[in-house]
Amino acid sequence: MDGNPSTNRSVVEGRWFREVDESWNGYSLSLGVEEVLFHKKSDFQDILVFKSTSFGNVLVLDGIIQCTERDEFTYQEMICHLPMNVHPNPKKVLVIGGGDGGCVREVLKYTSVQKVVLAEIDKMVVDVSKLYLPQMSSGLSDPRVDIQICDGVDYICNHPGEFDVIITDAPDPVGPATELYEKKFYTKLKAALTPNGVICCQGQTVFISSELVASMVKMCKDVFPNVGYATGSTPTYATGIMGYMVASVNPEINLAEPVRQLSDADIDKMSLQNYNSQLHRSCFVLPTYIRKILRDIIDT
Amino acid sequence: MDGNPSTNRSVVEGRWFREVDESWNGYSLSLGVEEVLFHKKSDFQDILVFKSTSFGNVLVLDGIIQCTERDEFTYQEMICHLPMNVHPNPKKVLVIGGGDGGCVREVLKYTSVQKVVLAEIDKMVVDVSKLYLPQMSSGLSDPRVDIQICDGVDYICNHPGEFDVIITDAPDPVGPATELYEKKFYTKLKAALTPNGVICCQGQTVFISSELVASMVKMCKDVFPNVGYATGSTPTYATGIMGYMVASVNPEINLAEPVRQLSDADIDKMSLQNYNSQLHRSCFVLPTYIRKILRDIIDT
Repeated sequence: MDGNPSTNRSVVEGRWFREVDESWNGYSLSLGVEEVLFHKKSDFQDILVFKSTSFGNVLVLDGIIQCTERDEFTYQEMICHLPMNVHPNPKKVLVIGGGDGGCVREVLKYTSVQKVVLAEIDKMVVDVSKLYLPQMSSGLSDPRVDIQICDGVDYICNHPGEFDVIITDAPDPVGPATELYEKKFYTKLKAALTPNGVICCQGQTVFISSELVASMVKMCKDVFPNVGYATGSTPTYATGIMGYMVASVNPEINLAEPVRQLSDADIDKMSLQNYNSQLHRSCFVLPTYIRKILRDIIDT
Repeated sequence: MDGNPSTNRSVVEGRWFREVDESWNGYSLSLGVEEVLFHKKSDFQDILVFKSTSFGNVLVLDGIIQCTERDEFTYQEMICHLPMNVHPNPKKVLVIGGGDGGCVREVLKYTSVQKVVLAEIDKMVVDVSKLYLPQMSSGLSDPRVDIQICDGVDYICNHPGEFDVIITDAPDPVGPATELYEKKFYTKLKAALTPNGVICCQGQTVFISSELVASMVKMCKDVFPNVGYATGSTPTYATGIMGYMVASVNPEINLAEPVRQLSDADIDKMSLQNYNSQLHRSCFVLPTYIRKILRDIIDT
């Protein structure tokens, strides 16, 4: 493990995968590797899947861990069940990115859902996930799911007023995901929603990307009247704390108050390992340092 | 970075410190190293301090990161302000372990506090912290502080009924801290408390130590009538999610409800970067998978 910590890129070295992002300056997570299962460059990005020693199979895009079989539930459940539970009756849902299928799986747990569109730009992510991440991609063959291999931004432009919930399961703002971090993207998202529509976007980690988070939330608040920011734990994302930006076109909705309360029986039936109704409320309560960063932009 | 991920030990390699714990099986955090400032074996453990590229100075005991200057506030504030804010009038406080001084600094922020005893077994940790972790050790010279270089277990045995709050700022159950994870330790803690006494112990991370956490909470619940388990984010602790076990001899106290509400002015005056009264309540709300592990032991 040599070299300058601020310029190295992620690599498999011997029996370890080491994740290095230049913007994380000297912070790096490693997972033990049992076997590299897939490694190719698609038209859009570098795609790596390996079997880890204790986190199951791991999907890595452009050197950054996207999900591991062991802890993906922490992320997928938050990014899906937060917006799904502030909409009274979500019927049509769009997932932008999320080619691994984890979000689609979660969204399908609601009987109100009639259609889920997955707009993933990179077909290879979907194909690889079907092969190596079966617990995540299991829902992709559901008859309610429509997989669109396309640019998610183009897709929403062509489908105004159509979706009750839109989930942006995006990687970090490098490579194909760059335009998902621009203000005009939020304007387009808003236009694609029904009147009570709700969005939830991967909200980065304030600890190492405070400026990016503040800028995302500001852009979103310029477009949506109602924006909230929540956090949750995901062990294999850098710093272990992940943000979720939730917004609605309806200013009356309390984003921190779920419209349906899940009983223990519901939790079991929906196989929820992370989300519960009490956690929904509490995840919007922010540590002081995050509150200070966001307090001039949104109510925290 | 070679070798078997399940048997390696933490090392400084080139410009990185790599933390490996055998029980974390294939999960490893690395921090960029600018300079190794101190590295010696004391009578009790291996002590390393290095200047990191972006987390300030870092204290490492027996290969495990104890604190970094950049994120220590996340841990120190939780382990101190949770118990301090469920006691109506804490006057005498004991910190077991915590030779870096961070807990002492936090406890001194309460004007009700007349005396803080720091019972640290390893004088070298205190000396090294005074030299290299000034922002943590600053409170150690306060006239209210009594530093006892001794075994914390012996100390509590000799001071029955004396403390309003006891904080166990212990490393993991290896080396000198092993006996802090035995049932008789909780019996001794209870005996050292005043009638409304409250304890808070470093509560491990459920994600990789679920059996240890369940066993700690069970042992504590066998001794204390009132036990709660909270979680919080600390980026440089393995998996980024840290547990806090809070208990009181008074069964009437609601551990999740702070007895004093801190205003924004209080937060500023006390320089709190993590803790706030809303976070106190919400940190006891657990993700489903943690709830399931603890639900037969305590109310979650």
